[in-house]
Parts: sequence; C-alpha cells; structure tokens
Amino acid sequence: MSKERLYLFDTTLRDGAQTTGIDFSVEEKRRIAAVLDDLGVDYVEGGFPGANATDTRLFENPPALETARLTAFGMVKRAGRSVSNDSGFQAVMAAKCPAICLVAKAWDYHVRVALGISNDENLAAIAQSVEAIVASGREAMIDCEHFFDGYKGNAAYALAVARTAYEAGARWVVLCDTNGGTLPHEFEHIIADVTKVVPGSHLGIHTHNDTENAVANSLMAVRAGVRQIQGTLNGIGERCGNANLTSIIPTLLLKSEFADRFETGVTPARLRQLTHASRILDEILNRNPDRHAPYVGESAFATKAGIHASAILKDPQTYEHVAPESVGNRRRLLVSKQGGKSSILAAMEKLGIPVDRDEAVLVRVLDEVKSREAAGYSYEAAEASFELLARRMLGEVPRYFSVDSFRVMVERRHNAKGDLVTVAEAIVKVSIDGADEPIWSVGEGNGPVNALDRALRKDLGRFQKHIENVELVDYKVRILTGGTEAVTRVLVESLDTVTGERWFTVGVSPNIIDASFEALLDAINYKLMKDAARVVEQAVGRAV
Amino acid sequence: MSKERLYLFDTTLRDGAQTTGIDFSVEEKRRIAAVLDDLGVDYVEGGFPGANATDTRLFENPPALETARLTAFGMVKRAGRSVSNDSGFQAVMAAKCPAICLVAKAWDYHVRVALGISNDENLAAIAQSVEAIVASGREAMIDCEHFFDGYKGNAAYALAVARTAYEAGARWVVLCDTNGGTLPHEFEHIIADVTKVVPGSHLGIHTHNDTENAVANSLMAVRAGVRQIQGTLNGIGERCGNANLTSIIPTLLLKSEFADRFETGVTPARLRQLTHASRILDEILNRNPDRHAPYVGESAFATKAGIHASAILKDPQTYEHVAPESVGNRRRLLVSKQGGKSSILAAMEKLGIPVDRDEAVLVRVLDEVKSREAAGYSYEAAEASFELLARRMLGEVPRYFSVDSFRVMVERRHNAKGDLVTVAEAIVKVSIDGADEPIWSVGEGNGPVNALDRALRKDLGRFQKHIENVELVDYKVRILTGGTEAVTRVLVESLDTVTGERWFTVGVSPNIIDASFEALLDAINYKLMKDAARVVEQAVGRAV
Repeated sequence: MSKERLYLFDTTLRDGAQTTGIDFSVEEKRRIAAVLDDLGVDYVEGGFPGANATDTRLFENPPALETARLTAFGMVKRAGRSVSNDSGFQAVMAAKCPAICLVAKAWDYHVRVALGISNDENLAAIAQSVEAIVASGREAMIDCEHFFDGYKGNAAYALAVARTAYEAGARWVVLCDTNGGTLPHEFEHIIADVTKVVPGSHLGIHTHNDTENAVANSLMAVRAGVRQIQGTLNGIGERCGNANLTSIIPTLLLKSEFADRFETGVTPARLRQLTHASRILDEILNRNPDRHAPYVGESAFATKAGIHASAILKDPQTYEHVAPESVGNRRRLLVSKQGGKSSILAAMEKLGIPVDRDEAVLVRVLDEVKSREAAGYSYEAAEASFELLARRMLGEVPRYFSVDSFRVMVERRHNAKGDLVTVAEAIVKVSIDGADEPIWSVGEGNGPVNALDRALRKDLGRFQKHIENVELVDYKVRILTGGTEAVTRVLVESLDTVTGERWFTVGVSPNIIDASFEALLDAINYKLMKDAARVVEQAVGRAV
Repeated sequence: MSKERLYLFDTTLRDGAQTTGIDFSVEEKRRIAAVLDDLGVDYVEGGFPGANATDTRLFENPPALETARLTAFGMVKRAGRSVSNDSGFQAVMAAKCPAICLVAKAWDYHVRVALGISNDENLAAIAQSVEAIVASGREAMIDCEHFFDGYKGNAAYALAVARTAYEAGARWVVLCDTNGGTLPHEFEHIIADVTKVVPGSHLGIHTHNDTENAVANSLMAVRAGVRQIQGTLNGIGERCGNANLTSIIPTLLLKSEFADRFETGVTPARLRQLTHASRILDEILNRNPDRHAPYVGESAFATKAGIHASAILKDPQTYEHVAPESVGNRRRLLVSKQGGKSSILAAMEKLGIPVDRDEAVLVRVLDEVKSREAAGYSYEAAEASFELLARRMLGEVPRYFSVDSFRVMVERRHNAKGDLVTVAEAIVKVSIDGADEPIWSVGEGNGPVNALDRALRKDLGRFQKHIENVELVDYKVRILTGGTEAVTRVLVESLDTVTGERWFTVGVSPNIIDASFEALLDAINYKLMKDAARVVEQAVGRAV
C-alpha cells in the first residue's frame, strides 16, 4: 500500500525567533537552514522580510537549499490598498524564495478590534494577496491566526477565511492555535468541519505549547486529516514555545500508527541526524541542551533505577519505546547508589572496559563508587570522572603531573580612582612526571575558580599542547548538607573547541576551591588519558 | 450539577527522585512534601523505604501533612515467600504512613523474563500484598508497570492483573505507561476495555514524557474514565520526566472541558500558589527555572511581537488562553512596565510598607528591581534582600557599618606531617557607624566563604550582640550565562538559633567571593534592621 505524504514546515527561524532572549544573525539563520535542509524538512520559513534588517538581508541573498523550500513570512495586504501600493506586502514579495506564507485574521472579533475593518474586507484582502503570490509563480500559504478561538466564536466566519484562501489558490491553509489554549480532544471535530470546505491535503496545523499539548495537538490534527505540520527545532518559540518538531518527527517515523500510513521527507537515515541537529541549534544559541528532551536528550534513554537497569541489560527493547540509535542518540546506564552491580558493569562495558560480572575489580569499583557517593560525589552526571576512576583502578592511567601546592587570593580594595574593586589571583606549583624542575604558574581571573583554572592550564610542560583547545564551559556548585558537615560538590563541563567533544567531571570538598580544583584536574587528566589512547590506536593502526 | 472528584497523586519525591542528577535529602523531602500539601494534592509519594537510608529515615519520622496522604512506594512481595518473610516488603510495611503503593508487573513477558515466575504466581503475589496492606488498616494501590505494552502483548493478562488488584481491595489500580511510548489516541479504547473489569473511580494513570505527550496522555485518560492522575512537579522524572502536574492541574481547573465536570483538592485559591510551588522546587534543586514552562514559566505570558503586544494592551483575554494571575504568574509585556508594578505593590504590602499604586517610590523600586534582575539578581527566593532594598529606598535603613576592604586566601600545601591540606583565611576591615577606629577581624574556615563569614561576624562593635545567634545554614550558587559574561548568583539562608527565624539574601557578581560577600552583608543588615524595628515597637509599647 502506498503511503500518504506528510509535509513538515519548520518555523524555527521565524516564529522560533520570537523566543525571549533569541536573536539570530543572518549567518546563524543560514547555518540553521542548512541543518534543516539536511534533515529533510519540506519548508524552511526564514523570517519576515521588510520587518527587520536581518530578515531582509537573508532573503536578498538566500541560502541554497537542496530539497527544502525557503519560505518568507508576511502579513496579508492591508484592506483598502492594492497589493502594489502596500509597501509591507511588497517587501515580502521582493524576497527571493519559492514560497510565501501570509498570516490572516480568522477570528471576526480580531478583524473588528485589531484591524478595524469589515469581515468582507478581510476576506477580499486575503484573496487578493494569495492571487498576487500565485501570479508571481510562487507557492502561497495562509496562516489562519487564532483559528480555533475564531471557530468557537464564529465558526462560519473562520471557515469562510479558510475557504477563501483555498479558493484563491493557496497551496496550504494553516490552522493556527495562536495562544496555545486548545486541547487535544478538540481537534478531531473542528478539523472534521474544516475538511468540508478545504481538503485535508491542503490543510496545515500550527500549535503552541501553552498547555504542554503542542505535540499531541499536532498529532491529533494529522489523525483528523491535516497533511502539513508546522513547528520548530527543540520547540523554541514565543511564551512556551511552538510544536516541537524534534519530538514530532521521530513519532511520525517510528510509531506504527503513523509510520504505516505516512511518509515524510525525513528518511530513516536522515532521522539519525536528529540528535545532532537539536544539539547544533543549542550550540548556536549558546544554551545548555535540555538533558530530558524526548528522543534527543542526553537522559532520554538513561536509567538509574537498579531494578530496571539489570532488566534492560537482558532485553533493552521492552524497556525502550524506540531504539536510541534511530534518532542518533544512545543508551545510558547511570552509575548511582540506586543502581547496583549491573549498572556499573554496563557503564564499564560501554567504556570498552572488559570485565566479568564477578570479577574482583568490578566489586572494587562498585565499593569505591559507593563510598565516594556517601562522601558527596555523584557520577551520573560526571562520566569522565567515573571513567578516570575506573581506569585508574585498573592501573591504566599514569600520573601525568601533580600539583604540589596552590594559593588563591581574592582581595577587595579601593583602586587608584577610589572605586571598590575585587581582584582574584592564583598561583600553582606543578611537577610534570619525569621533569626535574617544578613549574610555577600565575593566573588572574574574575573569580577564584577562574583564576585557578587559568593558572592550572597556563603551563603543563610537554602536556600543554593537549589542553590548548580545552575550555571550561559550565560550572555548577551544590552544597550538600547530608551529613554533619556541609560539603561542596562542583561539576565542571569542558569543551574541546576543535573536536566539539564535551565531558563532565566532579569534585567534592568542604572547601569550594578544593572541590573546583579536583574537578578541574579530572577534566585535564581525562583529556590527557583520551589523547594517550588515541596515540596508541593510531600506532596500532599504523602497525597493522 | 455536582462535580466528580479527580484525585492528584504526586510522585516528585519517588519517581521524580529517579531524575538524573537529583538526590534529595530527608530535609528537602520534608520541605517539598509541605509545599505539595499546601497546594492541595491528595497523595504525596515520599519514597521507597528500605531501598535507601534517606527514604527509610523519612518514613520513620514522617512529615505532618494537613490534607495530603503520605504514601510509601514498594514492590509487590516476592513469589514463594510469605509477606512476613519478605524483608523488602516488611521494610515498606514498617513505614509510618496511611497509604502504600506497590509496583506490579502487568506484562506477561516481564513476569517471565524479569521475575522468572508463572503468570498465576504473579497474580497471587499481588493479591496477597494488597490484602496485607488492607489488613494493616491502610490504603492500598497497585502501579501496573508497562500496562499498555502488556495490554498490546496479552490483553487478557494485563486486565487480569488490574482486576486481581482491585478485587483484593486496592483503592487504586494505576495504569502505567512505564516507557512512555503510548500515544494520546490510544488511551480511549484501551481504558474503555479496562473499565469493564475495574470501575474508573478506582483507576489511576501514570505516564512518562518520552514522546512529549505525557500531559496529553493523562488528560485523554481522564476523558476515558480514570479518576486519579500521577505526576510530578515541573515534570521531573527519569529519562524525559513524568507527567507534569504543574501543567495538568491548571488545565483541569481553568479549562471548561474539565472544570465544568470535575473538581480536585486544589482550589482556585491554592492554584494561585502554583508558580511559587514550581519555583521552590527549582530552588531546592538549585536549577534555573524553565522560562518557557507552560503556565508557570517566566515567559509563559510574555510576548515580544510588536503586533501582539499592542493588541494585548487593548484586550488581554483574547490573546491569553488563561489569566496569568490564576496560577500566580504574571503578564510580561516586553515593551511596557505595566507587568511588574502590581507584583511589586503586592510584595511591599506583604511587608507592611504602605504605598499607593501611583506613588513615585513604587516606580523607583520597580525600576531598581528590574535593572537588578537584568544584572542577574532574583528576589523570588530572597525576600530579605528585597525588603532591605525597598526600605533603603524609602530611607528607613541607616548605614550600621561598612566594610572598607577584605582579603580571602585559600592555600593548599603540605603540613608538618607531610599531608596535603587546604586552609582558608579571611581578613576584613570594618568601620562601625559613629566609631572612630576601624576594626580588623580575621576568620578561618573550611572554605573561603566560611572564612569570610566568620571574619565578618567576629566583631561588629556595638552591633555584635544582635548577630551573636545568627548562623549561615544554607548557601547556594548558580552560574548565570545569560549575557556576554557569566555571573555568579549566591543565595544565603540565615537562621536565628534563638527565635528560629530564617531569612534569605542574594548577591550577584562575576566573582563568587564578591557575590557571597554581598549576600552575607545583606543577611547581617537585615537582622540589624529587624532588631531596630523591634526596639521601636517595644518603646512604643511601653509608652502606651
């Protein structure tokens, strides 16, 4: 049986750009458009030309996309003006792209209050705008704003808007739940009514996440007959965000209820890039990825419950609703006090450390992890520290260097101008394994940890070249008040700016500087250990 | 028409505790339980007694809850053992609480593979476990693990598990979508089948967010007949999280499709605490609140689109699906100052500072708070700092003392025995208002902040007696990476060991020591301000 085609319309660069705190540059828009094109979406809405300089520039010199159609967003022309006399409309028409999507009012209340025109004037403006786009040889779409509230207020008028757009030649008539207030069970009967005036093969759905139902609403709309889905990568968007394509796409491809009936431009092979696409967007936005994001989150296939962990090893499929590899993600069995031997075993196997279930080293690592966790350590978010610990216990990690002493000073004082300023300074004394003389390094920073980090990474002698591209990108502090004395747990995220690899390390001490120091040392040692392993691999490769 | 009752079952402290990186202390569990009780949920699942020391201690000395029923989680007793011979089961039975929820396998495949027992042995174990709980005079619940996958694999057996639990006396039989793979449209027909063996008034739903449909799935289940909903605050939980009660509760209360038919323990008045409850959990977890969270997020009612913003001013209701105040949140118009004035006014009124809505000081405080929030401050959890700020702007707070300079040093070195030790030392120079000579104080501590705190509180001259009983009891650090430069926000909790009063203060700086210093200063100044007010009150009291 041949499958029906579903169309994916991405508005990350337009509606997603409405997110509080997001401000894409032209270059960033180009990069994201390329990622979306690679992923296989059908439409990439790039922005609103004429509304701001970034979007105007993007559409003057549009990115070359392989299969996705670049789409410009705009507003239906003003009533009482011809299309050629409306400068806003003409700015959109000037965009160099094969498709244009215009927003139109579908709620008669807003036609009256916000536009101040008659219902018929609004319909005429919609029809003339669509006709102008079609006449220019391009694909026309109409976003029916507040469609569902409009339908509840005046169904006949909301339907008239949809029909007018369709009859004027719009390829897609998109039903927008603009304020995100519609609930999943409402879509079926409303859309059934809409399909009486516009065929489902010409209907799109655009939802917002204000009740946390944007994904479900989109899926329900597809079941009710619409064939185009609008959304954004990672669900970014105004207020609570738009429908999250990163969650919708895998459901369409991997869940038989949809996969058996429909196909999209995202093939199974492209789907394996989904996690990567999601992370790239976060990278561009300089955000920490949501660890708990469905399908693509770092923890989406992670488990720390002991009862589950041992069973997952027996048969992962019954515990995972889809295979993590299908979306380019991976399974994680977390090392924690709730898990037991089997999760340590699984963690070690994942690291490529071959150990038997009953081997003594496994018991020793488990005991060490348990006693460290009792002292405040937590390895579930610090896999690099765990790997270092395990490999050290196996005798695989040499001591590259040691820090004999350090001193950190923070001083607040009046400067020459009489202003109160605070300065931070650190001195470390490092002994490199095999070298005769210790190295003294001094670092200044905007705080004590920053100063210590700089001093520590200033000069590691012959190891320096390995850490040249390592950056501390995140630093988290938690005070644990479990026992009698409070201890500080520090989690450090490091980034290799060349390879893009990230790793997490942990340090614990009653003293925050000590705890930070330990996590920083682990971060450096992890990098040196990994580089050493790579050298061995290459040497073996050459020998073979 | 009388409404049907829906029951809310919160598992933040049990399933939520499975979240990667979350590790509640007993004290934190108590605090969260109190927040949930205040909010009006029906059940608070506190943890798994016997599985770890934290949960065992919690249930040995349970928190006193007003209306919510504290619930212990456990596993159905092992097959082939009597309930009294199963030590794990007995550890759960030993919990001091009025309700117990046991997880049971509902998928025959897992009965065989994970438990290695027969289908009938599993049913017998479930019945005997429920009977034992009922015989102890408590409410029994069964979580049917993997119910939906089980139903798809062997419907008759999944239904037999549900019926067995119900017939043995379980108050609630909870259908769990354990791996989160079930889609919204599947609930109606499956639950219709379940209600043939267990009445909907005894059915619960427990969903996970692996396809981003946990909220929709819970709502669909209610429409299909279940009357208990399990979920967590902020949707925390293993992998992608549990059903988010913070989104579900307002939908049940504010959307007519549910509000007209159902009522819950959360009244409209309690619903206004929802945003606060959500933020408190983040505070305890030391997480940045999700700005885009439905209903309670900082941006949930924010808009930056010019076209929308001006229209919202005309008529907010048609642009907002619910009123932000109904969940204790607020509208944010990024083009206008309207948003914050009423909340600042409310905060000042709460402190007993009488100001008119239009008074100039209100605008000045609002401006100051806004500019400080832009710099990284947050007064949501630092009311003492807010009160100090507001009263200072009203000219009510004199300068008691000032710190002209400080120096903090942390040193790691070998001690006389040759061990590596780290010492922290701080020196502060304090000028007391009205005194001629500055006071130098030195403090040692287990970390730089501790040393600084001790030095600062060692000698405040004539104010010393006021701070003698003040202790720093909690200290939280968060790195904010909003702007170009990362800043550190420190939150300090202080305790008067005599009166038991606690207060929270905040400090922000790129330098963690500076930020800590600011919060410590606020903590001391707050105490001096409060004591001064008490002196005035007492004097007035004597005069009358």
